Amino acid sequence: MKEIDFLRIISNTLQNNKYLGDDCAYLEDLDIYITQDTLVEDVHFTMNTISAYELGIKSIAVNLSDLASCAALPKYLTISLSLPKTINNNFIKEFYNGVNTMCQQYKTKVVGGDLTKSEKIIISICAIGKKIAKYKAARQLARPNDIIITTGPHGESAAGLKLLPQKTPFTSKHLTPEPRVELGIKLGQICTRDFAMMDTSDGLADALYKIATESKVKLSVDFSKIPFNPKLKEYFSIDYKKLILWGGEDYELVACIKESDYNRLDKNKFFKIGTVTEKSGTGFVMIKDKKNEYTINEKTFDENSYKHFEE
Amino acid sequence: MKEIDFLRIISNTLQNNKYLGDDCAYLEDLDIYITQDTLVEDVHFTMNTISAYELGIKSIAVNLSDLASCAALPKYLTISLSLPKTINNNFIKEFYNGVNTMCQQYKTKVVGGDLTKSEKIIISICAIGKKIAKYKAARQLARPNDIIITTGPHGESAAGLKLLPQKTPFTSKHLTPEPRVELGIKLGQICTRDFAMMDTSDGLADALYKIATESKVKLSVDFSKIPFNPKLKEYFSIDYKKLILWGGEDYELVACIKESDYNRLDKNKFFKIGTVTEKSGTGFVMIKDKKNEYTINEKTFDENSYKHFEE
Repeated sequence: MKEIDFLRIISNTLQNNKYLGDDCAYLEDLDIYITQDTLVEDVHFTMNTISAYELGIKSIAVNLSDLASCAALPKYLTISLSLPKTINNNFIKEFYNGVNTMCQQYKTKVVGGDLTKSEKIIISICAIGKKIAKYKAARQLARPNDIIITTGPHGESAAGLKLLPQKTPFTSKHLTPEPRVELGIKLGQICTRDFAMMDTSDGLADALYKIATESKVKLSVDFSKIPFNPKLKEYFSIDYKKLILWGGEDYELVACIKESDYNRLDKNKFFKIGTVTEKSGTGFVMIKDKKNEYTINEKTFDENSYKHFEE
Repeated sequence: MKEIDFLRIISNTLQNNKYLGDDCAYLEDLDIYITQDTLVEDVHFTMNTISAYELGIKSIAVNLSDLASCAALPKYLTISLSLPKTINNNFIKEFYNGVNTMCQQYKTKVVGGDLTKSEKIIISICAIGKKIAKYKAARQLARPNDIIITTGPHGESAAGLKLLPQKTPFTSKHLTPEPRVELGIKLGQICTRDFAMMDTSDGLADALYKIATESKVKLSVDFSKIPFNPKLKEYFSIDYKKLILWGGEDYELVACIKESDYNRLDKNKFFKIGTVTEKSGTGFVMIKDKKNEYTINEKTFDENSYKHFEE
């Protein structure tokens, strides 16, 4: 059973499903964004390769990244921790030290949560952010002639994961990612109309493909413009391209914005990687790499994307 | 390790801990209450004895009960489901049918969430409610001369659990509890000053003791006034009193309110069970039962209360 089938069942069953499918829900009457993400031991992390402190950092980063993808200002968090009976006191202390570090850096407060017993460590976090941008950011808002931008390099987090427990130049991007909160807010301030945005939690190609299909447009991406750490080539030889496109958990932002808005951005922080070329019935992504062209459509997406419910 | 020790570590580690300890957090700038609760398979429920539909109902009830204990109006929910790979399609459909039933009954919307893989079923729900009462309801607000009230019978949920998988007159109160949302809101409307309130998710005695210690008062409770299902005596003989006091998950409300406010309440819905007699350094509960008196203090509480982290 695939995640998309699960989501279809949920969407068909729930009477009110207009909020489903985005990274965050915008609650108009309260003028806030809300998001919830769960990390499960031995699915999303293993305690052999991440410290409790790093896990605290990462758990918060994952949720703040969702808020960043809506250009929202993080305000509040609730944290539900499910822990085995045998857990060490130090785990909780170190985990919350990581949480503290993030709360200070992103001026966010933990306002509640829950503590339960479980066999594996489960961390479910709910984050609330204020809407501060005048316009809306969501995946279905890309338009022809938009510029496609991203906020940083891709492939490192997946590379770090593959090489664990070995410490490599990629490890920290995997264990303690930095959510692009400031850059998301910056985009929200600069953009002069609604625009498309997602974080790359499930990979760059995944985000591009979802923006393309939800906006029903063709995205044309120049592979040579995608920023990446050149060390990826050393470690992974020709496979490095696959990591850049399909590796997840880099928690960068991808956005499609108006060219005139793009021109007002700092080019050292926002990297142009392509353009939205035209309307397209189902939406797809064309990636040009030197003389080759590579299409992300339903088939290639299905073959390559991260499957939450398959190994 | 006890839950209270975990909470102490969290409270000592977090830089901003003013929100911890209550069932919900009140976010002043947004004028909302927020709460999060997690249910773990084989800790809080087993799939042999609850249907997916009932589990959907109960998961929402648990969170709405927290909002009820703050006299808040439920508005939005996010639901994170972690599911084994082998889960049946029907589980999700039936679970969300249960969610739907509750959303319709309590005029609440599911606005987001997350779906992940895990070994056991884990349901983590975040609920948001609007503040509609003029005054505040929280466990530390009981005052001498307040009337202690509760909204319904106790002991049935724990009785239902003990007798599972047998169907008994108590089963439905355990599997599909009704959160006292309407009664919580009613109290919020009637009360003319801040008042103490909790739900009885961890048992009646637990709620009374927490109100007593957090408010630093003595609560004097008349056992004969506590409503209960007389069938408890048939099924449990003399042990029924223990179930009434210490059995959890009835999801009724307990409040300590001004006598003049109490006089304006419907006596068929709000049952007077005692009075707050006086200030007390540490706070405790005295329960009078015919000629006997029974004290809930640190020792008896520790011996009898539900331990989240012990068997």
